[in-house]
Parts: sequence; structure tokens; C-alpha cells
Amino acid sequence: MNLLKDKIISEGIVLSDTVLKVDSFLNHQMDPQLMKAMGEEFAHRFAEDKITKVLTIESSGIAPALMAALTLNVPLVFARKQKSLTLREDLIVERVHSFTKQVTNDVTVSRKYLSPNDTVLIIDDFLAVGEAAQGLARITEQVGAKVAGIGIVIEKSFQTGRQTLIEAGYRVESLARIASLHDGSVQFIEE
Amino acid sequence: MNLLKDKIISEGIVLSDTVLKVDSFLNHQMDPQLMKAMGEEFAHRFAEDKITKVLTIESSGIAPALMAALTLNVPLVFARKQKSLTLREDLIVERVHSFTKQVTNDVTVSRKYLSPNDTVLIIDDFLAVGEAAQGLARITEQVGAKVAGIGIVIEKSFQTGRQTLIEAGYRVESLARIASLHDGSVQFIEE
Repeated sequence: MNLLKDKIISEGIVLSDTVLKVDSFLNHQMDPQLMKAMGEEFAHRFAEDKITKVLTIESSGIAPALMAALTLNVPLVFARKQKSLTLREDLIVERVHSFTKQVTNDVTVSRKYLSPNDTVLIIDDFLAVGEAAQGLARITEQVGAKVAGIGIVIEKSFQTGRQTLIEAGYRVESLARIASLHDGSVQFIEE
Repeated sequence: MNLLKDKIISEGIVLSDTVLKVDSFLNHQMDPQLMKAMGEEFAHRFAEDKITKVLTIESSGIAPALMAALTLNVPLVFARKQKSLTLREDLIVERVHSFTKQVTNDVTVSRKYLSPNDTVLIIDDFLAVGEAAQGLARITEQVGAKVAGIGIVIEKSFQTGRQTLIEAGYRVESLARIASLHDGSVQFIEE
């Protein structure tokens, strides 16, 4: 998606060979027009998949997922992150380790908002090793719902996440695929 | 806003005389069409105020704030909540206690995304005692920017937040004002 790639080139900050900071338009400040365009692009790519629900994880996933849900005209559910949780019957809980932040969270969704009849589009801001997306997929499957696919804003294609998700049988649609962050410069995979 | 009030009546769960749970359309599952309508209503109410930025706090504030920012065609900044923080020069930090969740967080915004030239619309999901809104207002004023007003999705008018904010000189625009949650039933302030 060229609009997003242009934004990454002009405003992204390469902090290391593995970390790209996009606080100016995605993770702290947000560009609403870009969010809308990204949501529409996700909706377009999954237009034939009879999506009934979009699932994401707080906080940076909410904006692109909301715009996708708006375009698809289905509800959005955002999973909560909690440090650790007392077990509650009404919650589905998966433990997820964040590669980027080096923290482990319990990711939770209420059983009320996913049903076996749902076809779910999972959306997240970044894909690195794929832990968050896998956690959301496991949550979806625990209730017997179907994962239609995983929509990612920025994929770090030099990490293992995409491969892991594809080997697990998931369709992955990323709006920007980054081949490398070497030498402070962003190289995309051209598609 | 009648669309919101209808949703509160049909789906809100009164947990106590002070706590209203709206997980089905605002705090866990979200209704994107309702979020869009609420964002447009905020934008309409502040249409003459030359807003340059919308400021909210993760996570439930993001969706209505994003829709307001989209309609006003300005960037959205969402403040981060952190348990406690090592001081960093580039961050503005305010300590905020949540009445509803009974936790204290450091609320942070990067200095990069607010400037003295900004006119800021603050948006949050709930107003109880007003701690979060005041924290966001202090952050805005610390950089020398102007607070145009505070937009709230659900105001608990039986708590002190609105009065506190108005006495501090802020304009408060709430989409639903709840007079009482007594006896498990929601009573609105009619306007």
C-alpha cells in the first residue's frame, strides 16, 4: 500500500536492525485519513470472506481495525492486555509474549463477543514473530469460530512471524512488508 | 445523543449505583457505526473552535476520538498509560488515578506531538471524578497549547467530574449524561 510505504519512508525512525518507530502516524499520534485508507484496504482484501467480526488487541491495533470493521459493517472486538489475571469463567485467556516490548501479557476476550458462528478477521499493527496474532487466532478457535485471515499494518518480513502464521494455515495480508532495516534504512519487499 | 442513549438502555449493565458496564459497544466490543456517529457529533459541537488536534487516552477513548479527528481532519494523539515510568525528557507525564478501576497510572504524551500552537479537543469514554480529563488538560497546558474543550461519551452526572472541570474553566460536552444508576436502572439528564 503506497500511501503507507510513503509514510514509513518519510516519518518512520529506524532505531535498530529490528525496531522501526512509527509514533508519528500509528503508535502514538495517528493520521485518521491513513487509518481510514488502511481499514478500507483490509476490507477490500477480505471482501469475499463473509467476515462477521474484526478482532484486534489494544491499543495500536484499535484504529486500523475499527476502520476495517466500519467498512465491513461488522462489530470490532479488542482484546485486553493484562499483566496477570485471576481466572474468570467468562474470559478466554491466552498468554502472549511481545517481541518488541519484551513483556508477557495475558490477552483476554469475553466469551460473550465471539461465537462459533463467527468468521473473524484479525488485525494488528505490527507482525514480528507473530505471538500476538497467534494468541488472537487461538482465542478465536477456542470458541469454535473461524479465522478468515490476519491483516497486518507493518510486517517485518525479516522476522519469523509471517512464515509461522502461514505454516499454521493462516492467510496473512500485510499492507507494508519490510525486507530489511539495515544501516538505518527501510527496504520493502516489492509485490 | 439519542442513538447512544438507546444503546445504553438496551445493552448497558448497571453493576452498582456507580458502575455502568458498556462492554458490548464501547469498552470491549465496539459498534463502528455508533463510533462514527459519536465522532461526527463531537466534531459538530466543536466545529467553530479551530481544533488542530484531538487528544485521548488508551484504550477505550481511541475509537470515538479517532472518528472525531477523522471528521475534523486533524491528527489524533493518544496518551499512554504506564504503571510507573523512568523519567524521560521527551515525555510529558501526569499521574492519574482512575475512579472506576482504582488504579494510578502515569499518563504520558511525547512533546513531539503537541505544540504551543495547538488547539486541542480532549475526548474520553467516561467522566466520573474527572481525573483522566484533568490529566490530559494539564498535559496540554504544560506545552502551552489551548484546551478547546472536553468531549465525553458517557458522563456520570451524579459524580463530581463535570463540576470540577467546569469550575476549572473547561467546556464539557457529553453525549449522554446519566443522572442516576439507582435500583439497577439508568436515568438520563434530559437536555
